[in-house]
Amino acid sequence: MANDCIFCKIIDGEIPSETLYQDELVTAFRDIRPVASTHILVIPNAHSSSVTEMGDGDAETLGRIVTVANQLAKQEGVSKSGFRLIVNAGPDAGQVVFHTHFHLIGGRELGPMVAR
Amino acid sequence: MANDCIFCKIIDGEIPSETLYQDELVTAFRDIRPVASTHILVIPNAHSSSVTEMGDGDAETLGRIVTVANQLAKQEGVSKSGFRLIVNAGPDAGQVVFHTHFHLIGGRELGPMVAR
Repeated sequence: MANDCIFCKIIDGEIPSETLYQDELVTAFRDIRPVASTHILVIPNAHSSSVTEMGDGDAETLGRIVTVANQLAKQEGVSKSGFRLIVNAGPDAGQVVFHTHFHLIGGRELGPMVAR
Repeated sequence: MANDCIFCKIIDGEIPSETLYQDELVTAFRDIRPVASTHILVIPNAHSSSVTEMGDGDAETLGRIVTVANQLAKQEGVSKSGFRLIVNAGPDAGQVVFHTHFHLIGGRELGPMVAR
């Protein structure tokens, strides 16, 4: 756990969240500023400040993130209608919390992946 | 390999692409319709029609995809300025090629993750 990391505190239950899933590797909870009816964050429990710090050594965690995202997409009823998984790294992507997180967004037509 | 899958044909070299990386698990090549100066697709060599078919069993491949995306982000000079990794699944996300692919997009301010 990293000091002063809001997502580490959510994982530990120090900060409340609408947690939808948690196991030994990952935690999933609703984004507090949803941009669509389904907007969930799936995050590794182990702190990393950005996906740039992850890779081969985190394969098990990355596999679990995708498994959990798919399960939650089904639960939310967006698995067939469609959803987007997104990781933002760094300023041009608008990363604001420096604990790696995968956005799962669905529930409507999502439009372009980036500004045009 | 899936018959008539354009990305399987790119992996096999039957259809030309600007391939930037290939190993036993993944292939990376430039998107032919880039939405930013860096727009690369990183894909598993094993065919799956959507990320909904991937998960724990593909951990090694998913780890490699993230490793390769990070390497390419460095090569492209966008690792620090920022980039976005995106997987689109299904119609609401605008998935058009049914071989799982991770978009790596960077090189400018990317704006919102989905239409507002």
